[in-house]
Amino acid sequence: MKIKLFLTDIDGVWTDGGMYYDQQGNELKKFNTADSAGVLFCRLLDIEVGIITGEDTAIVARRAEKLKIKQLHQGVKNKLQKATEICEELGIDLQEVAYIGDDINDILLLDAVGIAAAPQNAPEYVKDHASMVMKSKGGDGAFREFVETVLKMNGLLETALQKYLEQQKGLEQ
Amino acid sequence: MKIKLFLTDIDGVWTDGGMYYDQQGNELKKFNTADSAGVLFCRLLDIEVGIITGEDTAIVARRAEKLKIKQLHQGVKNKLQKATEICEELGIDLQEVAYIGDDINDILLLDAVGIAAAPQNAPEYVKDHASMVMKSKGGDGAFREFVETVLKMNGLLETALQKYLEQQKGLEQ
Amino acid sequence: MKIKLFLTDIDGVWTDGGMYYDQQGNELKKFNTADSAGVLFCRLLDIEVGIITGEDTAIVARRAEKLKIKQLHQGVKNKLQKATEICEELGIDLQEVAYIGDDINDILLLDAVGIAAAPQNAPEYVKDHASMVMKSKGGDGAFREFVETVLKMNGLLETALQKYLEQQKGLEQ
Amino acid sequence: MKIKLFLTDIDGVWTDGGMYYDQQGNELKKFNTADSAGVLFCRLLDIEVGIITGEDTAIVARRAEKLKIKQLHQGVKNKLQKATEICEELGIDLQEVAYIGDDINDILLLDAVGIAAAPQNAPEYVKDHASMVMKSKGGDGAFREFVETVLKMNGLLETALQKYLEQQKGLEQ
Repeated sequence: MKIKLFLTDIDGVWTDGGMYYDQQGNELKKFNTADSAGVLFCRLLDIEVGIITGEDTAIVARRAEKLKIKQLHQGVKNKLQKATEICEELGIDLQEVAYIGDDINDILLLDAVGIAAAPQNAPEYVKDHASMVMKSKGGDGAFREFVETVLKMNGLLETALQKYLEQQKGLEQ
Repeated sequence: MKIKLFLTDIDGVWTDGGMYYDQQGNELKKFNTADSAGVLFCRLLDIEVGIITGEDTAIVARRAEKLKIKQLHQGVKNKLQKATEICEELGIDLQEVAYIGDDINDILLLDAVGIAAAPQNAPEYVKDHASMVMKSKGGDGAFREFVETVLKMNGLLETALQKYLEQQKGLEQ
Repeated sequence: MKIKLFLTDIDGVWTDGGMYYDQQGNELKKFNTADSAGVLFCRLLDIEVGIITGEDTAIVARRAEKLKIKQLHQGVKNKLQKATEICEELGIDLQEVAYIGDDINDILLLDAVGIAAAPQNAPEYVKDHASMVMKSKGGDGAFREFVETVLKMNGLLETALQKYLEQQKGLEQ
Repeated sequence: MKIKLFLTDIDGVWTDGGMYYDQQGNELKKFNTADSAGVLFCRLLDIEVGIITGEDTAIVARRAEKLKIKQLHQGVKNKLQKATEICEELGIDLQEVAYIGDDINDILLLDAVGIAAAPQNAPEYVKDHASMVMKSKGGDGAFREFVETVLKMNGLLETALQKYLEQQKGLEQ
């Protein structure tokens, strides 16, 4: 099955689940730059990437903007319903979606997509709903590993990497 | 023994003990979203959750608010005395309390409750006062593991998870 | 040899060496609350604790204040000379000092004190100057392990713990 | 081949790849003070150190200033071209450069320098372009290990350490 859309949870996948609170109402999340290559490979192959998360923060909005991810869906209560809506909008099927999530609010969506993945840190009863479990933990490159694993299955990882290197050779410093 | 109240320490249990100080008098703690499912499972089963900590920060107050935890007790010098008071207020017995703590100020309370737990990172001489030691370290899901372990002992974890999934199916996106 | 003073480096001992920089000139260090029991045990036994660090930040000043450490020496270029001065002031000998440090600016002082320790993360050529190497890494309780190890050698750890528990029983909540 | 210039990537080498975002547009990186000895050893041996990174932050500018690194090149799109330019300016050859990088934008430069290194956390297809892979991960002293490894190959590490200790003995406290 050709994957036309990568969807991803954030907390516990792009992060290790850590939520940093300070004394003044501010909050931080720690992303890993390793994951950005996952987004980049998808862009080079014209495969869409979307974020779908239950939380709603300026933090994630800024990370999405930095990585030029247009499909940003925050504060989602029912991820399956939201993903279904996104698919209709893009004219694709849930079976053409690859999704990675790590917790109980991901289970229904994991059950519905074409390729379902969980990072190493997910509870066993969530992993049971995933067709592939990453070696990496969330925040430790799990999203990148997920994208690379799916691309490799389709023989596309090497293509993406070569495209990247060709582009870079042509860049001004 | 049926557990009617989960009490929990914060530093070293909900966190890895880390206290981030900056140059301007601000401070941060790093929570783990994995633990929030522990609180959620309790709420779905109508079991109260309470925080009891020696520190006193706006950080923890905000985390409690986010997770809708009403029993928030900060700046506690004598945790056993405070827990006894909470039990009287709720009309329950200390034997109906499950408590998790990781350090020397938790020892007296660990000795008094029905189920006493310590995260993996606790010193040996604290673990000696716990009836169960978590596989997880503080900040790495130790509180969730604690709740799940106790619920499983009573055959309630699957009930809580199914309740959650049923609720979610009915949610608007 | 009876130890009358514990001296400690900060970065790489009380922390994992991490220095968090932000975009606005602010900086953070991550301490571990586990180490605070090390300071507390010393106070209960009337053994002085001092900080001696090459860095000079408000971060460490605040941590020292929180833990009621009066011997705070920051911005120290020559730690051996500074420690010698402290010893003179306190009327003790360098052989009565236990010191823990992890890097090249600790070597000369490690060579001069009665008990010299390094955390697990120190380079081999620094560990070579330590009489004991901690199992813990800096920021992971290395200072507490250091204090507990030295106290245990003198049969004082159990004394300190019992003193603590007795005190706590008498505290108001 | 005598190395006349150490060049280094930042994210994933001096850090674990972590990018901390807050709610207000601020960002943090976590450096490791262990790496500063790497810079110091080079200075004691009159070997230049330069930073070459695709990101462009005040964070890294401040870290470079703290460590007195003059060769600071941020926002670099084509690292090979930039390094070539630096070499021309310094009148040295790319074969006299030792470079450490961890990701796809480092590949072309890794292929061109005299000594090419990657930290433990680099993807396999990046490590394939490195002549040496560090035991340390980025943010865990990989840069220091890199410098020490190269200096040791030339019998210079012990020289640098002795120089440092001699200097320190002469310092006022």
